[in-house]
Amino acid sequence: MGIRLGANDYGKAENRVVRIYRDSPRHEIRDVTVTTALRGDFTDAHLRGDQSRVLPTDTQKNTCYAYAKEKGLREIEDYALTVARHFVADVEPVSGARIAVDEHTWERVPVDGRGHDHTWVRRESEIRTTVVEVSADGERVVSGLRDLVLLKSTGSEFAGFLTDPYTTLQETHDRIMSTSLVAEWAYAGTDVDWDKSWADVRRILLERFATVHSLALQQTLWEMGKGVLEAHPEITEISLSAPNKHHFVVDLAPFGLENPNEVFYAADRPYGLIQATVTRD
Amino acid sequence: MGIRLGANDYGKAENRVVRIYRDSPRHEIRDVTVTTALRGDFTDAHLRGDQSRVLPTDTQKNTCYAYAKEKGLREIEDYALTVARHFVADVEPVSGARIAVDEHTWERVPVDGRGHDHTWVRRESEIRTTVVEVSADGERVVSGLRDLVLLKSTGSEFAGFLTDPYTTLQETHDRIMSTSLVAEWAYAGTDVDWDKSWADVRRILLERFATVHSLALQQTLWEMGKGVLEAHPEITEISLSAPNKHHFVVDLAPFGLENPNEVFYAADRPYGLIQATVTRD
Amino acid sequence: MGIRLGANDYGKAENRVVRIYRDSPRHEIRDVTVTTALRGDFTDAHLRGDQSRVLPTDTQKNTCYAYAKEKGLREIEDYALTVARHFVADVEPVSGARIAVDEHTWERVPVDGRGHDHTWVRRESEIRTTVVEVSADGERVVSGLRDLVLLKSTGSEFAGFLTDPYTTLQETHDRIMSTSLVAEWAYAGTDVDWDKSWADVRRILLERFATVHSLALQQTLWEMGKGVLEAHPEITEISLSAPNKHHFVVDLAPFGLENPNEVFYAADRPYGLIQATVTRD
Amino acid sequence: MGIRLGANDYGKAENRVVRIYRDSPRHEIRDVTVTTALRGDFTDAHLRGDQSRVLPTDTQKNTCYAYAKEKGLREIEDYALTVARHFVADVEPVSGARIAVDEHTWERVPVDGRGHDHTWVRRESEIRTTVVEVSADGERVVSGLRDLVLLKSTGSEFAGFLTDPYTTLQETHDRIMSTSLVAEWAYAGTDVDWDKSWADVRRILLERFATVHSLALQQTLWEMGKGVLEAHPEITEISLSAPNKHHFVVDLAPFGLENPNEVFYAADRPYGLIQATVTRD
Repeated sequence: MGIRLGANDYGKAENRVVRIYRDSPRHEIRDVTVTTALRGDFTDAHLRGDQSRVLPTDTQKNTCYAYAKEKGLREIEDYALTVARHFVADVEPVSGARIAVDEHTWERVPVDGRGHDHTWVRRESEIRTTVVEVSADGERVVSGLRDLVLLKSTGSEFAGFLTDPYTTLQETHDRIMSTSLVAEWAYAGTDVDWDKSWADVRRILLERFATVHSLALQQTLWEMGKGVLEAHPEITEISLSAPNKHHFVVDLAPFGLENPNEVFYAADRPYGLIQATVTRD
Repeated sequence: MGIRLGANDYGKAENRVVRIYRDSPRHEIRDVTVTTALRGDFTDAHLRGDQSRVLPTDTQKNTCYAYAKEKGLREIEDYALTVARHFVADVEPVSGARIAVDEHTWERVPVDGRGHDHTWVRRESEIRTTVVEVSADGERVVSGLRDLVLLKSTGSEFAGFLTDPYTTLQETHDRIMSTSLVAEWAYAGTDVDWDKSWADVRRILLERFATVHSLALQQTLWEMGKGVLEAHPEITEISLSAPNKHHFVVDLAPFGLENPNEVFYAADRPYGLIQATVTRD
Repeated sequence: MGIRLGANDYGKAENRVVRIYRDSPRHEIRDVTVTTALRGDFTDAHLRGDQSRVLPTDTQKNTCYAYAKEKGLREIEDYALTVARHFVADVEPVSGARIAVDEHTWERVPVDGRGHDHTWVRRESEIRTTVVEVSADGERVVSGLRDLVLLKSTGSEFAGFLTDPYTTLQETHDRIMSTSLVAEWAYAGTDVDWDKSWADVRRILLERFATVHSLALQQTLWEMGKGVLEAHPEITEISLSAPNKHHFVVDLAPFGLENPNEVFYAADRPYGLIQATVTRD
Repeated sequence: MGIRLGANDYGKAENRVVRIYRDSPRHEIRDVTVTTALRGDFTDAHLRGDQSRVLPTDTQKNTCYAYAKEKGLREIEDYALTVARHFVADVEPVSGARIAVDEHTWERVPVDGRGHDHTWVRRESEIRTTVVEVSADGERVVSGLRDLVLLKSTGSEFAGFLTDPYTTLQETHDRIMSTSLVAEWAYAGTDVDWDKSWADVRRILLERFATVHSLALQQTLWEMGKGVLEAHPEITEISLSAPNKHHFVVDLAPFGLENPNEVFYAADRPYGLIQATVTRD
């Protein structure tokens, strides 16, 4: 059997781009981490070390910075689409581009009850994400968030489950449920008010997590995903990945104390990992 | 020369304690990481492996959990003092205890414009800290915060500095200044409204960072520390440790673009590290 | 359009299993991190919260520990296959299982020139990995390694590349090339001497990285992958993911010093990311 | 009470310096992370923002790179001393310098049974460290290591300990003992064969950990430290910090299996933390 080159891509990962808008004394800030990946026929680079069709990853980095000035950096989906289209349209050997952007959000520091003009404090609790793919097959935008850490101190059960000889878990009708959510949703097109759509999806995810009485994390994820698809026709599919961050009730009986779900040990590992996609027919 | 045992301590590090108050449907939550360290005459344990004066670290862990129920866990300074005093008072061989607590803060998830009763979202951008030491020498409380990430997009200069043959840095009268602040302040006593004091110190640190026109990070730290001591007579000293998280202006000239402090590369390493203590005479 | 459940799975992630063989005074050790994921028709769990077909992730964890005793834990591929086959064969609703194992390797501590019977030092520089999937479609084993950090201080070029208006990179005929390699290779079957195969693949990867005069990281990856497939008919495909960990020559001219590729700044981010699969026709 | 500036220092942290010696085809490599910190009278910088006595951290970084060429970078203690002495001797406002160096070690890739001339694989399992302080008070060198992960699968007990009402731990006469050791030892002077001394201290630490039958981690640390001081008159003191990385015997009885210390759960947090200094009278 012959040996041949299979799938391959290359790019510059984790370019840290900070864009300040300072047209007025009241600055604006965008802080992103950008990763590029290009596809095309790069067989000669692999088989013979011939780089004549290879745009350096250093150039890809330069492009990310230059475009932040030349084309602007506001909504990360628009920025990613602009960069991706450029590589496919303007660099001959490139047939496909994948641009991933993580956005790190800042809030204005409050001074005398008002947000300061040019001083910010980082709100690191979660990352807004987008992954854009552009090729002859079309354009695809998948936006999302990660590191959204949530906890319910009641309103969560786990009972009636399947048992086998290795099962020791007890049923519970009241437990802590906590996760660090990763959500990614695919858009049908690119004519979208990205900021507005993102903020409302996030609102729905939070509200459903809060208000669904959970019989299992699977059910909660389904309800969250369904809520998003029902309210957002521009979204075709949403994938949720949720670690079940276990909080164990501590046995205080040896010390003569009751513990009616008041004191918990928050474990690191292992953790459950529940993943589900909700889609349209 | 003889060889002897010098300073030593032992304890249980990073106990993850979550305390839910569920006396009403509107729960409260405290989420902390507790580290204990005990001192005393533990020579026999070292030299002969005799554990008869050694309270196991497992017992120290149990105590942290039991006290969260038995004595409560509200303000972390009170909780740490209570645990520390217990070890020194109730466990004979223990002459000193050091209890460090990191608090991870949660916000209620907003549902229909109101915070939910029992669902929270983690605000991870910073950690509230305290370190309490109790011994025959007295009690000492040092509270603080870390991972408070700040950025000014203007209002920061660096010029007129000392030069030597290894200096290549250019002066600047307008740069980004960014840091991930660690602050620790010592209290004169323990009769303090801890939550209120902590929140106001944090407010002052943020406001000073925002409003001081900075000629150097050293100057900003001094002004922040001075502001805290001026407003808080219960605090005797404050130490600030501030990485200078460099943001470099990207040279866009090769691409025919100007870059008047609009596009920056945020570097990871190396970083400046500026540390200062502000104290009272 | 109707809304429906799409792809989903669930399991217990990062179970830390340590297995000691102590049949003789000369112990053996296996130290692994195991992640399980089960597939099947779990629609009722999602749509109605009905757990009657859901084997708890806690049970999956128990199984990982029990099997380390009951069936043994030697070669990670055998262990993963045994666990995966069990879930598919013995738990009715499970139609597919994916077991991922990371192995952390230990070496015996040398004492008087000989490895000690029961004392080890961790060799953390790299992780041996396997991912096993078992379903009605058959069995698939993909083994590999990650965090294999390599560096060549010469024998690497990058020149003759494509340029565009955003290109500023200079050609070089002598640079440092460094990477933290991730390799994953798929086996045609399961009748394999896993330890022997793994060790020889690793040897080939290292030798090719060392001996290929590199015109680009792409070429090096191709040669590494080709070398593995040529020598190992039991392997059908290998995927290599290689960050290009940039080492920049420091400009010492301002200090009157030459720097003929002797002093480098090792950068963290951004980094190139080159990925290629080598396969058979 | 007046408010005044207390202790302060500043420097450049985590400079990543790689030095290649290429005088012959058989290269040598040194890979270090250097952190500088300068002390002196920098009151004007803090109180008035006057930088005229402040050597920029950027210059400190340049010096680290330039000295790697100009003075060489072989033993990290010599390198750190040379850089520290320079700042104190040559930069007028500097009265004290602290240079910390972490060394990342590489091994030659074996090719045909011989280490390759210019290709290395990273051995990341531990870091060699030094911290050098130079001031009018003299010179102090503290070398060490960290992330040295060790495990004994038998030969460790914990019994006869103090109990109180919060004690639930059972005694054990056979357990796993594992740690990730941090060791730091102080030298009496600077006329030392650093590499040789470091390697022999490491050998002693490993051998004592292996051969001491441990009644407690405290005892093991004492024996390790004593062994070092007995064999190395050039060392005045050694401090050991050892997390007790708990490995819990898994209860397999519910599955009809015995577990005579064969299958363990390796926990992340909490962990014991035992710290001791062994010194000379």
